[in-house]
Amino acid sequence: MQDDPLAARLRFLQEIDALKSVVRQTKLVDGSRRENSAEHSWHLAMYAWTLADYAPEGSDPERVVRMLLLHDIVEVDAGDTPFHGAAGHEAQAEKELRAAHRIFGLLPAAQRDEALSLWLEFEAAESPDARFAKALDRLQPFMANVANQGGTWADNGLTLADVVARYGSIIGRGSPRLWALAERLAHEHFGA
Amino acid sequence: MQDDPLAARLRFLQEIDALKSVVRQTKLVDGSRRENSAEHSWHLAMYAWTLADYAPEGSDPERVVRMLLLHDIVEVDAGDTPFHGAAGHEAQAEKELRAAHRIFGLLPAAQRDEALSLWLEFEAAESPDARFAKALDRLQPFMANVANQGGTWADNGLTLADVVARYGSIIGRGSPRLWALAERLAHEHFGA
Repeated sequence: MQDDPLAARLRFLQEIDALKSVVRQTKLVDGSRRENSAEHSWHLAMYAWTLADYAPEGSDPERVVRMLLLHDIVEVDAGDTPFHGAAGHEAQAEKELRAAHRIFGLLPAAQRDEALSLWLEFEAAESPDARFAKALDRLQPFMANVANQGGTWADNGLTLADVVARYGSIIGRGSPRLWALAERLAHEHFGA
Repeated sequence: MQDDPLAARLRFLQEIDALKSVVRQTKLVDGSRRENSAEHSWHLAMYAWTLADYAPEGSDPERVVRMLLLHDIVEVDAGDTPFHGAAGHEAQAEKELRAAHRIFGLLPAAQRDEALSLWLEFEAAESPDARFAKALDRLQPFMANVANQGGTWADNGLTLADVVARYGSIIGRGSPRLWALAERLAHEHFGA
């Protein structure tokens, strides 16, 4: 079965099931528990479809969906990196790169290369698709925090200025219109 | 904000977060807990991308991904219907149709219509895209059961003949090649 592309693909699909067990800091909108990276990825893909009108020029909504579906798969090996956590970003980046090669490497060559290059493009955050995907990857937990009395902002003692500084550039680079709304929600949330 | 399409879209995205709390019968591949419909939908979208080579002629992989991302959203109101459960399918179908109108109805008209029509096409299971989506929606829990000493098959006392009867037509209609492999795995699983 080693060289059978179907067997290889099914092995990949069984392997990435583990993303359902990677728990993030963000809570569900109803506050009942923290969300995992698989359901987060589903939600982001729905964000990309629903908010496609707010994507930058030159962006391809289907490609953004694909990018978001696989953007967190490296966490199967490398774990989640909390956005408001401590540093150590370089060691984490190295771990994630190794994870990408191992996990996407389970696929036949053409699919491995497509997945790897989509993931590297997401990480580089330069192309229109990647900038929009990064913006949504911030906007979704932002919206969960707004629904959860501040959520991870409250957990980490963040002020309005912190929130504007940490989210504004990433969401704004992907979509000025989405940031305009998010900034208004942040002001309302902090009563400012 | 009522007529603001961005506010309407964000309301829809907050509302569908509840899909993360709809628990299915199928267990994760590692057996640690039952999966929910949001992470199941993510996994299915990855199935569609990974297994696109096995889709029927005339099927559009990106459309199948979209269809699978939203195929279970009605469960936010209607709950999950276990595949090996009792009947009551008509009352459930009516509940799901009401749910589709309410939840997709939160979106601006053009997106509401696109979502509704993709969901109805999935339910009808006639088009190449819908047949493939339905096949994947069966194959993914099938693979989880194989990894979990029979999973929901064991829970419900199913025999090899039951499994072949219940999965064969749905997976085979969407992809004879995927069913050929799945049938082999079922025979191996039941030691037949």
